[in-house]
Amino acid sequence: MGKVHEGNSNTEDKKTEFSLVRVKSTWKSKLGKKINKDAVDSVSAAKIYESITDRGTSWTVVSPITFTYKVTETHDLLDPTNDTLLLGHITDPQHLEDIKKSNKPIRRFVVIDQEVFKIYGPKLTEYLEANNVVYKILALPITEGNKSMETALKILDDVNNFALDRRTEPIIAIGGGVCLDIVGLAASLYRRRTPYIRVPTTLLSYIDASVGAKTGVNFANCKNKLGAYIPPAAALLDLSFMQTVPRRHISNGLAEMLKMALMKHQGLFELLEEHGCMLLDTKFQADNTLYGHSSVKVASQATHIAITTMLEELAPNLWEDDLNRLVDFGHLISPALEMKVLPSLLHGEAVNIDMSYMVYLSHECGLLMEEEKQRIISCMVGLELPVWHEEFTMELIQKSLQDRLKHSGGLVRMPLPVGLGQAEIFNNTSFDILQRAYIKWCEELSVSSDSTCDV
Amino acid sequence: MGKVHEGNSNTEDKKTEFSLVRVKSTWKSKLGKKINKDAVDSVSAAKIYESITDRGTSWTVVSPITFTYKVTETHDLLDPTNDTLLLGHITDPQHLEDIKKSNKPIRRFVVIDQEVFKIYGPKLTEYLEANNVVYKILALPITEGNKSMETALKILDDVNNFALDRRTEPIIAIGGGVCLDIVGLAASLYRRRTPYIRVPTTLLSYIDASVGAKTGVNFANCKNKLGAYIPPAAALLDLSFMQTVPRRHISNGLAEMLKMALMKHQGLFELLEEHGCMLLDTKFQADNTLYGHSSVKVASQATHIAITTMLEELAPNLWEDDLNRLVDFGHLISPALEMKVLPSLLHGEAVNIDMSYMVYLSHECGLLMEEEKQRIISCMVGLELPVWHEEFTMELIQKSLQDRLKHSGGLVRMPLPVGLGQAEIFNNTSFDILQRAYIKWCEELSVSSDSTCDV
Repeated sequence: MGKVHEGNSNTEDKKTEFSLVRVKSTWKSKLGKKINKDAVDSVSAAKIYESITDRGTSWTVVSPITFTYKVTETHDLLDPTNDTLLLGHITDPQHLEDIKKSNKPIRRFVVIDQEVFKIYGPKLTEYLEANNVVYKILALPITEGNKSMETALKILDDVNNFALDRRTEPIIAIGGGVCLDIVGLAASLYRRRTPYIRVPTTLLSYIDASVGAKTGVNFANCKNKLGAYIPPAAALLDLSFMQTVPRRHISNGLAEMLKMALMKHQGLFELLEEHGCMLLDTKFQADNTLYGHSSVKVASQATHIAITTMLEELAPNLWEDDLNRLVDFGHLISPALEMKVLPSLLHGEAVNIDMSYMVYLSHECGLLMEEEKQRIISCMVGLELPVWHEEFTMELIQKSLQDRLKHSGGLVRMPLPVGLGQAEIFNNTSFDILQRAYIKWCEELSVSSDSTCDV
Repeated sequence: MGKVHEGNSNTEDKKTEFSLVRVKSTWKSKLGKKINKDAVDSVSAAKIYESITDRGTSWTVVSPITFTYKVTETHDLLDPTNDTLLLGHITDPQHLEDIKKSNKPIRRFVVIDQEVFKIYGPKLTEYLEANNVVYKILALPITEGNKSMETALKILDDVNNFALDRRTEPIIAIGGGVCLDIVGLAASLYRRRTPYIRVPTTLLSYIDASVGAKTGVNFANCKNKLGAYIPPAAALLDLSFMQTVPRRHISNGLAEMLKMALMKHQGLFELLEEHGCMLLDTKFQADNTLYGHSSVKVASQATHIAITTMLEELAPNLWEDDLNRLVDFGHLISPALEMKVLPSLLHGEAVNIDMSYMVYLSHECGLLMEEEKQRIISCMVGLELPVWHEEFTMELIQKSLQDRLKHSGGLVRMPLPVGLGQAEIFNNTSFDILQRAYIKWCEELSVSSDSTCDV
């Protein structure tokens, strides 16, 4: 570099574009786009643009990083003959073969929610022993209350004592969303990035936390204020964990499933509308005396659609650079509600109350027909989800939308259903309409008839 | 998704490739590579591969994230008429114009090393006041000893109290490498990623920490054990800060400059060889009664080459996925030495002792001629850098190389000069050669003649 040419950039400066090529061990910058590929060992996708100003030189570095991760359905994850937990994250077949041939014992550090360990601890230990794994299991009491950097540092202390090799020994997290979030952040910090594996044991984390790149801990009384966008090496999904999930927590997960249905998939909505009760009764399990084999098919269809629709929205926007996100539906007012009434509402319940109001708003805007609105609310009730809450006030709505304006580049970017399984993003919703929807929402859904609307 | 086709992937599974296209607000997956671009609003660079195994479906998400950042030379950074500190990170000309037209005051949170604040505090305050900035300056005592997550959290507390908008208000860090590393990590964690700006005030951070993506804090007695690979929005470089840097710290920075010279640039080596003393005397400043105007030219050439050679190596490997790195030269044994004798050696000094030994090793391997070896060592001495240390023992060398083997995928990946300004990566260096080089290195360079070699 150093030679100054006129580039063809659109910005105001004269810029020179350099490509980067490698010859033996050394990277060199080459002027312009034409590269003789035979003369070099490799060409990078990165670019450097150089421009000269009257105050000196300015370089703009453009460097793409590609994240590759797996989301894998399996069953019998803790069956000693199933190697998915140990090797399921590996994408390179040659690498996989090398490991299988090698005699070196596998080493794994496992963080597991204490409550989950009580149920699955013996099976997990047996699995690791049977596979000759050198392991350390850290069973931690994990709650929204200790979802903190302190807990992440405690995990990191133990990771460090285990002398983990960050290139070949992914950290395994087994638990609900909170556990997966904390461990994901801890792993992402360790040696600037250690791979980790998510094993969700709740329905909510199965279809939501597992699929994306977000990690985080609470800070200064705010949900997930600190975190990173680093996807796991793999999310390993086994529905059999759901059999020990309490019924209320199945509902909790169904709320996020319903979100994807309302935003993107009428078929999923109709599945939940028709079979919601069965999914609650069977907890997504196979053998059931009441429903027979049909319940497995519905369970697998529902989770499959929920995951693929979620992946469609997340993969192109892994770092949330695009602020127009359908997956934000139900998440505009609910974070404030959730923090306000903690721990009385579960995440999915708060999300559902938010969605319920938004459905009324959508109807008030003329985007949803009365019959569609009714069907959605009935479906929510069928999934045993709350559709109204007295702390979800007009004041809370306004405050949350103002906050969102600030953090969303000056636009409210509100996803709203425009029919069943279709949605769009809206930016101009007047106070008047917000309030009219709120009044109607309270009139029709407030639990006790004598509760007055706080407008 | 859901339909299963035979893909053309190389892996063992049958995979189906999906592209991602956006229509209005919704992302949809499309089978195969052919996209009718007229029928969609945008096409993502991300891909999803679906494969069916006997245990269920597995999705592989491939999602590229592009980092864009600026490294900008300027002068008079704190001159109120220079808007680089406030707007120099913005790459979109339209965005820049909008801000300049807007009447809204700019808000900035600034973290500055307490020692730097003592010197530049009044100028900085004056600059911010003159530009009508709503600001908070956090002046912190920053040392290697408090380069910790605790310090990062302290910064984050104040950032949160400032109610920082993570979309439009980059955090500004002013100080040496330690300060820039901590603030970079804190910013990267805040709301999962808040942009930050690096203003280096030492020569070492000017040409090293500023240019790349690494952030970090020490943990469990290990240097930078926790951190992230998130580049700053901009590194703003002003050589005038060097005038208040002590002479020993100028040497310290010259060591990293010499590293790039030895690895990649004979011209830079010859500059340092010929003008090292001048650079130390003038501290990279313009007007100097001893040397006149020629010193400016040399200073600007040297920093320019150091930065561009560094960018060449970092841009294609921003997340250090490729373990073969020339920039690791001088950093194989020195981290252990530095931690062992802390705080008696500065980072660049430890690096130089490591490089000095490696030069002997290179000579012992027949890669460097005796005369080249002598020239390099003389140049180091001319830069007033230590070339030998009694704690740099054969034991330390072996232990460090063993550690490196572990964290570098089983290969030692040792960069060695193979002539002046050229280098390659080597993996097979026998204990015998390491020891022969060590003995000769001690014989020729150990400070006192009666010190015995600990082999």
